[in-house]
Amino acid sequence: MRVGVLGTGMVGRAIGTRFAELRNEVTIGTRNVEALLARTEPDAMGNEPFAAWKEQHPEIALGMFAEAAAAGELVVNATNGAGSLDALHAAGEQNLNGKVLIDIANPLDASRGMLPSLFVSNTDSLGEQIQRAFPAVMVVKALNTMNAFVMADPSTVAGGQHTVFVSGNDDQAKAKVTEILRSFGWRDVLDLGDITTARGPEMYLPLWIRMWGALGTGTFNISVVR
Amino acid sequence: MRVGVLGTGMVGRAIGTRFAELRNEVTIGTRNVEALLARTEPDAMGNEPFAAWKEQHPEIALGMFAEAAAAGELVVNATNGAGSLDALHAAGEQNLNGKVLIDIANPLDASRGMLPSLFVSNTDSLGEQIQRAFPAVMVVKALNTMNAFVMADPSTVAGGQHTVFVSGNDDQAKAKVTEILRSFGWRDVLDLGDITTARGPEMYLPLWIRMWGALGTGTFNISVVR
Repeated sequence: MRVGVLGTGMVGRAIGTRFAELRNEVTIGTRNVEALLARTEPDAMGNEPFAAWKEQHPEIALGMFAEAAAAGELVVNATNGAGSLDALHAAGEQNLNGKVLIDIANPLDASRGMLPSLFVSNTDSLGEQIQRAFPAVMVVKALNTMNAFVMADPSTVAGGQHTVFVSGNDDQAKAKVTEILRSFGWRDVLDLGDITTARGPEMYLPLWIRMWGALGTGTFNISVVR
Repeated sequence: MRVGVLGTGMVGRAIGTRFAELRNEVTIGTRNVEALLARTEPDAMGNEPFAAWKEQHPEIALGMFAEAAAAGELVVNATNGAGSLDALHAAGEQNLNGKVLIDIANPLDASRGMLPSLFVSNTDSLGEQIQRAFPAVMVVKALNTMNAFVMADPSTVAGGQHTVFVSGNDDQAKAKVTEILRSFGWRDVLDLGDITTARGPEMYLPLWIRMWGALGTGTFNISVVR
């Protein structure tokens, strides 16, 4: 399958690598290829410069947001939540319409201090905002509830016995995403319902952040036991 | 131990019963004893009238909020989140100061439709509001992340192998609450940090509600696997 991954941070790199390992053709997209490749310092999160990472991943193509979206039969939103709508508009409706979009972004508002809060919550969600802005795209919220390494390879925690959520309006799109998640190693995929249910996993993030602080590691996840 | 439980709904009843089973002296408190006992219809949640429940629980004393708070060495806030500050003011600072208060309430705002949202979130929490209003009370947020029956007896789900959170400013108070939780059967008690971390477990509620919908049962919980 051809996959377009929007976003070149930790999540985009981890997901792009995983799709490529699983023999998909991956194009990773960014706002400005030249500016991205010109950076020589680690980013704010301490990730190595993209150019250095890219050298180790010749199997992954690089392009503008619109090129990555056009290249993908399926597209992944791995951009920063605050910039997701802009990135998707740059990717272009014509390159997204009719496709499944896996939305991994979280609506984190880092402007309000060290412990980010959400810029949308309670009565709306980023997943819904994206679905409303792109009504002909099949948005499936998934993978936003764990760190990038656990997303891409759940077996790194407790042999993979823990849970990932999917929310979306289109059952076929959710079935497709569930199949992809299973290929990543996810065994417990819980379908929460339509895209409005994305409010749940997005509002879980503030708990995830406190658990991260309490546990001193991001290598954990929740298992829904029932 | 003498325990005062504020709130006569499903949570107050389940927690009160559990404390009594474990040989504590329990007083359950309400705003208006006469009005409560006069009700003959099930409440909005379908619970049997309190008077009928009370007849089966002669071991549990009943009183006004202030009487229950005064009677307890430890007090539990099992009131509706929207009414918690009022209930605690009715219980009286003089009856609460210097005591540990286990805050189980959730800041659910049912006025905004079928799927309640939170009336406080992101940059504040109900736990913090209570701690600020009662600075001499040792507030510990706990047990607000599962249904009343799972709270009281975690062994009803997966033999008890799942997680409960505690948040609070006072380490001795959290140690006391942890001991109580262990007596209930909780094996994985995760200390998230000070009372500001209550934002995490409170904001988890919207996810809990969607999982309840998807699973068709409230008899579940999350286990933090790491």
